[in-house]
Amino acid sequence: MTFDTLFINARLATLAGDGVSLVDKGAIAASGGRIVYAGAQKDLPSTQAKLTVDCESRFITPGLIDCHTHLVYGGNRAREFEMRLEGASYEDIAKAGGGILSSVCATRAASEHDLLQSALKRLDHLIAEGVTTVEIKSGYGLDLGAEKKMLRVAREIENEREINVETTFLGAHALPPEFANKDDYIDHLCNDMLPAIAKEKLADAVDGFCEGIAFSPAQIKKVFETAKKLNLTIKLHADQLSNQHGAKLAADYGALSADHLEHTDEDGVMAMATANTVAVMLPGAYYSLRETKAPPVDLFRKHNVKMAIATDSNPGTSPITSLLAIMNMAAVQFRLTVPEIIAGVTREAARALGQLDNIGTLEAGKTCDLCIWDIGELAELPYRLGFNPLWKRVWRGQ
Amino acid sequence: MTFDTLFINARLATLAGDGVSLVDKGAIAASGGRIVYAGAQKDLPSTQAKLTVDCESRFITPGLIDCHTHLVYGGNRAREFEMRLEGASYEDIAKAGGGILSSVCATRAASEHDLLQSALKRLDHLIAEGVTTVEIKSGYGLDLGAEKKMLRVAREIENEREINVETTFLGAHALPPEFANKDDYIDHLCNDMLPAIAKEKLADAVDGFCEGIAFSPAQIKKVFETAKKLNLTIKLHADQLSNQHGAKLAADYGALSADHLEHTDEDGVMAMATANTVAVMLPGAYYSLRETKAPPVDLFRKHNVKMAIATDSNPGTSPITSLLAIMNMAAVQFRLTVPEIIAGVTREAARALGQLDNIGTLEAGKTCDLCIWDIGELAELPYRLGFNPLWKRVWRGQ
Repeated sequence: MTFDTLFINARLATLAGDGVSLVDKGAIAASGGRIVYAGAQKDLPSTQAKLTVDCESRFITPGLIDCHTHLVYGGNRAREFEMRLEGASYEDIAKAGGGILSSVCATRAASEHDLLQSALKRLDHLIAEGVTTVEIKSGYGLDLGAEKKMLRVAREIENEREINVETTFLGAHALPPEFANKDDYIDHLCNDMLPAIAKEKLADAVDGFCEGIAFSPAQIKKVFETAKKLNLTIKLHADQLSNQHGAKLAADYGALSADHLEHTDEDGVMAMATANTVAVMLPGAYYSLRETKAPPVDLFRKHNVKMAIATDSNPGTSPITSLLAIMNMAAVQFRLTVPEIIAGVTREAARALGQLDNIGTLEAGKTCDLCIWDIGELAELPYRLGFNPLWKRVWRGQ
Repeated sequence: MTFDTLFINARLATLAGDGVSLVDKGAIAASGGRIVYAGAQKDLPSTQAKLTVDCESRFITPGLIDCHTHLVYGGNRAREFEMRLEGASYEDIAKAGGGILSSVCATRAASEHDLLQSALKRLDHLIAEGVTTVEIKSGYGLDLGAEKKMLRVAREIENEREINVETTFLGAHALPPEFANKDDYIDHLCNDMLPAIAKEKLADAVDGFCEGIAFSPAQIKKVFETAKKLNLTIKLHADQLSNQHGAKLAADYGALSADHLEHTDEDGVMAMATANTVAVMLPGAYYSLRETKAPPVDLFRKHNVKMAIATDSNPGTSPITSLLAIMNMAAVQFRLTVPEIIAGVTREAARALGQLDNIGTLEAGKTCDLCIWDIGELAELPYRLGFNPLWKRVWRGQ
């Protein structure tokens, strides 16, 4: 048996089962872009390979997965950031054309080419840190044409870079300026936008923003009902700024994940546990918004809800393009442990995307997307900030 | 007149005078490694140059200055970071050999070569973001030989990379394990260590850690008196965890800077104003320690105390090697404005190092260390986190 590639003398964090599952003297064999062996080096079925990489005791983890981003958008919100520091109120900023609608205007006005180029600049920072799968949401278009444009750009990224992209339709992100009434917009979204998006297979999942400043649980229900009819999986921005019982709502509809969750109560957590809904925590938004109430991590642990973390990269509340920085924030701010953090950007992030059969652990049969790290222990990954110890990013076994 | 290098079609943030001093259609001319012209392009005295760089409307700032770091040390504290997340107490960590003394042990045990190589890895991240001057403290040696070793390594860095290094002797950082009594150690430091360091010209300045867990104001006074006699400039880790009136003490001795300052009161601020002592704020340590009391920024503004910011890069309380991330933290956590942040890593950081005559602004006569940024407005620098828009780092005009 001759493998395409063989990675030897490595310390593996396989993430198989629970925990990080360390293999101290490990090896990985890849053929056809997939892992055919991951485990103890002494048990390798063959040592023949077209290419052998000596990892010199470095750590290998699965390629990192950023399971919640808004990477595609026009413009930026630096001027609004500056105004806030100068003491401007939200009203001042709205009057100056700021806020989420400024991103909607810029995104609608941008060409597909420009949207792609600006997204790639951001994505390249994630790729440089070993991200091999990224989820990208629409939601700055808010009309069918602009939402489709965003999703096409997100899909196009797979042709431009060595990366898996999972797309999510987030039409229920904010009320578009041409609608006066949220119910009217949600009806349009359910009757016209969502069926068209589904028909063109532009979205792998459907998301919504359930919050006082966005859409009510009743409105989100309509979106979920429509998504279910169209056989699209769902997720939800839930309980970020207040407890809208969004986590429970999402779980009741069998959501893959509920995201943010700062204000989720134990009922919500228990519903998530029952539905196997993953808790996706977003410490970058918590940090940028200077929040003080962290998500209920102890309740997630108590009820065995799986926890993922992600950048939430977006122009308003998390202009962050470093998953390593987010891993540090998950430790510093949310007190996640090192194994929870490593699992949160690999196995559990894969689960949150419904992709655990394919990625997220080092196990035979999965895609061979790897990070090889120049570190002495896994804790070094979340311990530092603004430091990138990636030695090699492996894409499909290469 | 023929310049060595000419940078044209740039937007300059010259930092001359107060504020950021923007020049919209600007140019910089360099000869012999120094700026010979910085200002409006139309007023350039000549357009002849051996090399002309078209900046295509990009922004130029002075090279960034990180004016407070502990970049040279042995080992790391990732395991201690991990233990804290697992709920270990400070006592547990001390028993497991953690805390500052673990860095002292690792630094004493490390060869000069290994200390240099590990510091360069960290420094390279700062350099990649446009840092051209870095201050580096000793303080993990705590005996004469190991302190000298740290300072020699810091000096050696200038031979390995294109960077200005300012060295600081921080013998008064912690009580070394072989001393039972802080006064005895301070006497040894003043009588033996400091004169030897001064004689070998290994330190550009002298620093101390004035805190309940470190040294008292009376002990720091002795260090300052000795430094003054040896004609060394001084600075101080002051009022970080409690109000020890360290800022006032530092100012009373004419310190270049007082650093941290979370608990400084108005008396301390007024003393700093009188002495022209720069306030060096360290949002990375504030963030990592999960502090909730920010430095008195409004008092600094009221009394016109100059404000700088720095990484405080160190293995315990700020394992951070991104000055851009620190700029974001200064905005998010301390509410510094964009001009304050830009000045805080250029002009005011130069002032904090006593180097304002030489670096920190774009003015004729100064060293031509520049950052050319691929941004549309200066606010983009602190707005993002984990994103590096540096287009070109210019060292001595090249």
